[in-house]
Amino acid sequence: MPEDIYDKIMMLAKRRGFIFPSFEIYGGVAGFYDYGPLGSLLKNNIENLWRRIYLLIDNCMEIHTPTITLYEVLKASGHVDEFTDLTIDCKKCKQSYKVEDIINEGLSPEEAVEKKIVKCPNCKENLKDAYFVNLMFSTKIGIGKSRDAFLRPETAQGIFTDFHLLYRYGREKLPLGVIQLGKGYRNEVSPRQGIIRLREFSMAEAEIFFDPKDKTHTNFRSVKDEKLILFDNVKELEISLEDAVKSGIINNQALAYYMYLTQYFLLTAGVDPKKFRFRKHADNELAHYATECWDAELYSERFGWVECVGIADRSAYDLNAHIESSRTDMYAYRKFKKPELVEVKKIIPNMGVLGPFFKDKAGKIKDLLEKMDGSESKKITVTLDGEKIKIPENCYEIRQKKEKVIGEKFVPHVIEPSYGIDRILYYILEHNYYEGKKKGELYKILKLNSTIAPIKVGVLPLINDNNLIKIAKDIDKNLRDAAIKTYYDDSGSIGRRYARMDEIGTPFCVTVDHDTLKDKTVTIRDRDTTKQIRIKISEIINYFKERIQ
Amino acid sequence: MPEDIYDKIMMLAKRRGFIFPSFEIYGGVAGFYDYGPLGSLLKNNIENLWRRIYLLIDNCMEIHTPTITLYEVLKASGHVDEFTDLTIDCKKCKQSYKVEDIINEGLSPEEAVEKKIVKCPNCKENLKDAYFVNLMFSTKIGIGKSRDAFLRPETAQGIFTDFHLLYRYGREKLPLGVIQLGKGYRNEVSPRQGIIRLREFSMAEAEIFFDPKDKTHTNFRSVKDEKLILFDNVKELEISLEDAVKSGIINNQALAYYMYLTQYFLLTAGVDPKKFRFRKHADNELAHYATECWDAELYSERFGWVECVGIADRSAYDLNAHIESSRTDMYAYRKFKKPELVEVKKIIPNMGVLGPFFKDKAGKIKDLLEKMDGSESKKITVTLDGEKIKIPENCYEIRQKKEKVIGEKFVPHVIEPSYGIDRILYYILEHNYYEGKKKGELYKILKLNSTIAPIKVGVLPLINDNNLIKIAKDIDKNLRDAAIKTYYDDSGSIGRRYARMDEIGTPFCVTVDHDTLKDKTVTIRDRDTTKQIRIKISEIINYFKERIQ
Repeated sequence: MPEDIYDKIMMLAKRRGFIFPSFEIYGGVAGFYDYGPLGSLLKNNIENLWRRIYLLIDNCMEIHTPTITLYEVLKASGHVDEFTDLTIDCKKCKQSYKVEDIINEGLSPEEAVEKKIVKCPNCKENLKDAYFVNLMFSTKIGIGKSRDAFLRPETAQGIFTDFHLLYRYGREKLPLGVIQLGKGYRNEVSPRQGIIRLREFSMAEAEIFFDPKDKTHTNFRSVKDEKLILFDNVKELEISLEDAVKSGIINNQALAYYMYLTQYFLLTAGVDPKKFRFRKHADNELAHYATECWDAELYSERFGWVECVGIADRSAYDLNAHIESSRTDMYAYRKFKKPELVEVKKIIPNMGVLGPFFKDKAGKIKDLLEKMDGSESKKITVTLDGEKIKIPENCYEIRQKKEKVIGEKFVPHVIEPSYGIDRILYYILEHNYYEGKKKGELYKILKLNSTIAPIKVGVLPLINDNNLIKIAKDIDKNLRDAAIKTYYDDSGSIGRRYARMDEIGTPFCVTVDHDTLKDKTVTIRDRDTTKQIRIKISEIINYFKERIQ
Repeated sequence: MPEDIYDKIMMLAKRRGFIFPSFEIYGGVAGFYDYGPLGSLLKNNIENLWRRIYLLIDNCMEIHTPTITLYEVLKASGHVDEFTDLTIDCKKCKQSYKVEDIINEGLSPEEAVEKKIVKCPNCKENLKDAYFVNLMFSTKIGIGKSRDAFLRPETAQGIFTDFHLLYRYGREKLPLGVIQLGKGYRNEVSPRQGIIRLREFSMAEAEIFFDPKDKTHTNFRSVKDEKLILFDNVKELEISLEDAVKSGIINNQALAYYMYLTQYFLLTAGVDPKKFRFRKHADNELAHYATECWDAELYSERFGWVECVGIADRSAYDLNAHIESSRTDMYAYRKFKKPELVEVKKIIPNMGVLGPFFKDKAGKIKDLLEKMDGSESKKITVTLDGEKIKIPENCYEIRQKKEKVIGEKFVPHVIEPSYGIDRILYYILEHNYYEGKKKGELYKILKLNSTIAPIKVGVLPLINDNNLIKIAKDIDKNLRDAAIKTYYDDSGSIGRRYARMDEIGTPFCVTVDHDTLKDKTVTIRDRDTTKQIRIKISEIINYFKERIQ
């Protein structure tokens, strides 16, 4: 197979310290990659841009929850039962395959198995006895009486299980936006797409909780005329946010707004707009928790269009599941414009039974019961001083009555933009990779913009002269002290050093030469234009601060 | 038990959105905590300060490697065999204990078990049959032919196993500093110290590779007169870096320099210098990989002195282990000042056997063998086009001879400063917590400095007036656009709002009042002095940029 762009990128990435296969000295294992020095800087810059958009511009809260997640959480969320791949083994080759990977497009894995048309890609044997494999890495917490746990398949559940605390922190207002960045895990049966399909990956997720009766967004107005690039599975169209919502192509303002933020983030990070689109999930593609979902897809010469961000309306699915399973009050509250007369189910404690049964706790339990909503659940439980107490049915009765109420509880809906950072990072490399010839040799440039470029400035003494080196090292140190990441390099010809900086995507170089000794000026070289200008040493920091976000 | 400072901090932390117990709605589990909105900001700020020091000032490289780590890596590093706790069960109480936690100080766990003096802390039963429990969380990668793996107990191994790639990236120069921030895991038998002893924690580690013959550091000179706070297990002493190294209290410059960086980091982050010291490990305390270790200890009213940073000289332990296990060339190279005559063991290929045996590969194998060092290993293996090939012993002989050589290979030594971010975060809260009375009520202030405070500026309209609110919201947005994290608050009296900001450690408030409408000025309130000044709206951003790093 001739080298394609993926091979070229990954070879450059390994040679130049962006990406290494993990555990290579022990033979490696599919689905794991390391970020080297340049890859880590690039990844930090991508994540910081994302964080700036969500944490500062969109004013979300950020939280950090553990990667190890209790069984109970993921049972409630549906992942224990639903987060699976249909898998099939070849008894000849002793290989396991994800059915989806080895069938032709057009059929679902279930259909292909049913029609008995699944063949081993290796020996062409007809395969049968497909089975579902859960894709979570499992582990145990503690010894002896240990508890079952998984590595989280998404960061989102940590947000949902804290919703009541976050809602209170946010003064019980909606919309409420919460973000989390961190590792996610997916124990793929046999990942075959390099860095595009990882078993351990970096995610950035936002969960925006809305009143389901009001999926508007305060910032919508300011961006409503911006254009989104949509793909309806037949053709692409550019359409303004406002028109997309009005015509029903996108269900609501909130979804459209977060699609816009996603587009803004990706294009700012350096994705090629011609290799970017949003595609709507067909009904049979939707995850078990989603009611509407748009993927931000990026185009790769090897992989074609691949999902890098999913923007899903998860409705009330997750909060409902955790309320149901944990019996915790995770409702939001909506005030009516004016008091309304509604049917309510009140819990009327029967003190004749409750009193003798709970003794000195009875008074407090009575107060709690009277405040509760009798329509919520058949089994009544109260939490008293941290202890969960089941209330026997003969301790109360439930009476239906009309009451004037000023508001009501409800379960918020969630819009979730979920970003795969590793894929985005790879696509940024592919979209910004350029090849040419210089003096007959292959010349490679990564045209990373200054916001996300790992190294902002190469600092180069023109020749190996101690006077020039001293000045260059001072400039290098001053730039780093000003939080500008540099790369100091004094080895090889100046041409080779520029080439090295071009290849790793460094937008600017500062060169110190003999004129510097005379007039305290240096040369600034721009990677993309290769134009050079001279400025004073004293102006360097401000010059770059203005050009680098 | 009356509330102590830990209880107070943790209550404030939960109420104000710093720290929540994880999985609380499912009953929780010891050793796991969530960072809420303010805790996440604080944690990000601490990590960013650390990163600024190591990545920019000290000019280290950063890498990111997976948390899931192959068995082979941790077998080689010694963690499979050595990363254990001596554990004992009480058959009556059905509880497991880490022996170290339930014996009096002065004895090692092994001694206590041997002397049969370990008692159940609960029922006082004499306990026996202690056993070692490995503290790593284990999991499996893939299905069927799965591979054993663990969640990493430290980020360091990811750096060691990439050393050869990083050394090449750094142009084969030492010292070479590599950092990693991320999750570490330790499946504690029964953690009992809240956020001080976590099963999943955030670490920041630096591995600085040195030529063992030269543990000097270029930055040492610039800080040699700074004072370190040391504790020799009897008394504290303040001593300059230079004197500490000269007198042999600290083994070498490199160790002393990274101790200084650690002290600088912790004090800049807001640790109380009176509650800070370095303590040297006694020989029987050293981890299996360390030859010298200093702990940065912080003092807590509840926990006493606790290790928050360990600065260890790991010598060549880890690289040696991985060279031995993986047979990868992870050596560094040292040029001699002038060529030296040394005894070398050369591999002399026996082409009469090697030729027929390896056929068309024989020529390439011959070239590789001739370049190898015959003293390295008894079994000779070469890597040809990615394939590892064992060379039968009759294919070569090893001859000792004298040769003029210009340099030699060696295994670098490692100095490792390793930081427990969660503990540091807790101690910063404890050291900056102040209580007083105001109008007869308890008044709490967190005196977090502006570098690490989660919210930099509270933005408050004096009263609930639409004109003031509009201006305040504009100021809030402009500050956030300038990357300054704010908290906008218009509910409750201005006194209560200041109190809220004081309690979460916000160093500044901006108040918009009726004078603002007239002269476009606002009040800036300083948390610690409570002094108020008036400045122009147009000056706000610069005012804070100068005061907030």
